[in-house]
Amino acid sequence: MLAGGVGGARFLLGLRAAAPEARISVVGNTGDDVTLFGLRICPDLDTLMYTLGGGIDSDRGWGRTDESFTVRAELAAYGDARTWFGLGDRDLSTHLLRTEWLGHGIGLAEVTRRLCGRWQPGVELLPMTEAPVETHVALADGRRVHFQEWWIRLRAAIPATAFTLRGADAAVPAPGVLAALEAADLVLLPPSNPVVSIGTILTVPGIRDAVAAKPVVGLSPIVGGAPVRGMADACLAAMGVATTAQAVGRHYGADLLDGWLVDSVDADAQVPDVAVRAVPLLMHDLAATTAMARAALDLAAELTAGAGAQRAR
Amino acid sequence: MLAGGVGGARFLLGLRAAAPEARISVVGNTGDDVTLFGLRICPDLDTLMYTLGGGIDSDRGWGRTDESFTVRAELAAYGDARTWFGLGDRDLSTHLLRTEWLGHGIGLAEVTRRLCGRWQPGVELLPMTEAPVETHVALADGRRVHFQEWWIRLRAAIPATAFTLRGADAAVPAPGVLAALEAADLVLLPPSNPVVSIGTILTVPGIRDAVAAKPVVGLSPIVGGAPVRGMADACLAAMGVATTAQAVGRHYGADLLDGWLVDSVDADAQVPDVAVRAVPLLMHDLAATTAMARAALDLAAELTAGAGAQRAR
Repeated sequence: MLAGGVGGARFLLGLRAAAPEARISVVGNTGDDVTLFGLRICPDLDTLMYTLGGGIDSDRGWGRTDESFTVRAELAAYGDARTWFGLGDRDLSTHLLRTEWLGHGIGLAEVTRRLCGRWQPGVELLPMTEAPVETHVALADGRRVHFQEWWIRLRAAIPATAFTLRGADAAVPAPGVLAALEAADLVLLPPSNPVVSIGTILTVPGIRDAVAAKPVVGLSPIVGGAPVRGMADACLAAMGVATTAQAVGRHYGADLLDGWLVDSVDADAQVPDVAVRAVPLLMHDLAATTAMARAALDLAAELTAGAGAQRAR
Repeated sequence: MLAGGVGGARFLLGLRAAAPEARISVVGNTGDDVTLFGLRICPDLDTLMYTLGGGIDSDRGWGRTDESFTVRAELAAYGDARTWFGLGDRDLSTHLLRTEWLGHGIGLAEVTRRLCGRWQPGVELLPMTEAPVETHVALADGRRVHFQEWWIRLRAAIPATAFTLRGADAAVPAPGVLAALEAADLVLLPPSNPVVSIGTILTVPGIRDAVAAKPVVGLSPIVGGAPVRGMADACLAAMGVATTAQAVGRHYGADLLDGWLVDSVDADAQVPDVAVRAVPLLMHDLAATTAMARAALDLAAELTAGAGAQRAR
């Protein structure tokens, strides 16, 4: 599975429940990563790790449960203006260890593995790359800012005109990523942001081809013309993609997708040369999320059987 | 003034009160500095800054008031064994900013000045050097450890045989240090640890000569044969110096000292060619500490007048 933050993490809870025997590898987006206060912060990897490890603040969707913000308040008392970033005290320990290990020359894949030693996410969690890539956003007012600044500080209120993954040219997939994709029976695209999460992962040279070589089933993050969570509409607008389940399916396209799951309200969506199925796509609770994951696995099984039948024909 | 941590900081509260018009520069020990969790931590500079800025935990003598230890608990949950170091959440903000600024190539003197912008200590606080020196301790069991590990983790329970300031050879005084010493009418040695605080500062090439060229009055950290606070006895033993006010005065010696203040119980102390005076030397409260500082200034004035009289003769 490829995954961004909250949407991918919640879907994984359902996938783990739907396929308890499956060996699941997750390639996480690192385009949102940012260096703040000298700390290397990987929001999506941490959201995945905390969610699967039972440490997430489920209401907020990000950060640690029972979180406090003492350090942030003290930084503000020093006059630091970067307190728009939600740096919690518990969360901080993760960034401290990660930054220290990276500083010792340990790669982000191994760093993530060590951090997961505490959280036991039950999946193999891999960064998409160990290169220090960062998504930057070109704004309608001419500025270029780090994705986190646009997303959190500006709340995506200023329209974006383009997204660039800085450092992507020199990036290679992190150790384990291509091997996991090659070993996969199936690649799932969860209802993560199709532009700045899934789209960013696919920007890393080599990953798109490795994904496209496998049966791929995606789940729409757009339900009834609006993002289920977050501000995917603001990202899609910059790409000239409508905020509909059909448009996102066509944006991924048949080059990438074999199956596309949309919500029941979007049952009329059509994507050329892609099998579209409609099921409830709201992750209200674990039962609903597990049913979604099962529907994705069922669609994949159906397509694989069909492909086998086609080959047999 | 040269200063270590708690003793120097408390004495400065009295000195500020005793001489409100004086321009006070403080050369702080950085031999205790340590890099932990990737953070550059300067315990003595911080103790001075927090104490003079009203942010110190006065009962403990170090760290911030109303401190919490959430981050430390989380680091322990990751299996980190370095939690013997008292890393508080409020305190952490100081280390984060310092480490980030140092990483940007800003020197420790300027970093300290910026941090003091919040604390307004009322004195010029200077690190003894910007070089990354660290006091290491040779132990009787053959090990060599960082001073903090000996002092905090081992509680100085294993005898020390020698102290080395690693990096001292290549160190130069921090910007402002020699200028402050040259401009000084008087240098005070507060009742800080004579070995690992004052002794360490004097190890930085150039500082001892600049200090010795001035009238110097010291205050004994030993009262009645025991350190007022801390474990100076364990440090003095390694140097072959007895734990008495007289022995410490002789250890500094007439090359460095002009006057030596000892506690009333040590009134019989004698240091060749140094004027010894006995006054109460316990820093119970601000009034007592202010009286101590006034006694040191009085002794300095007396010696300066005497020197003037000698010259006039």
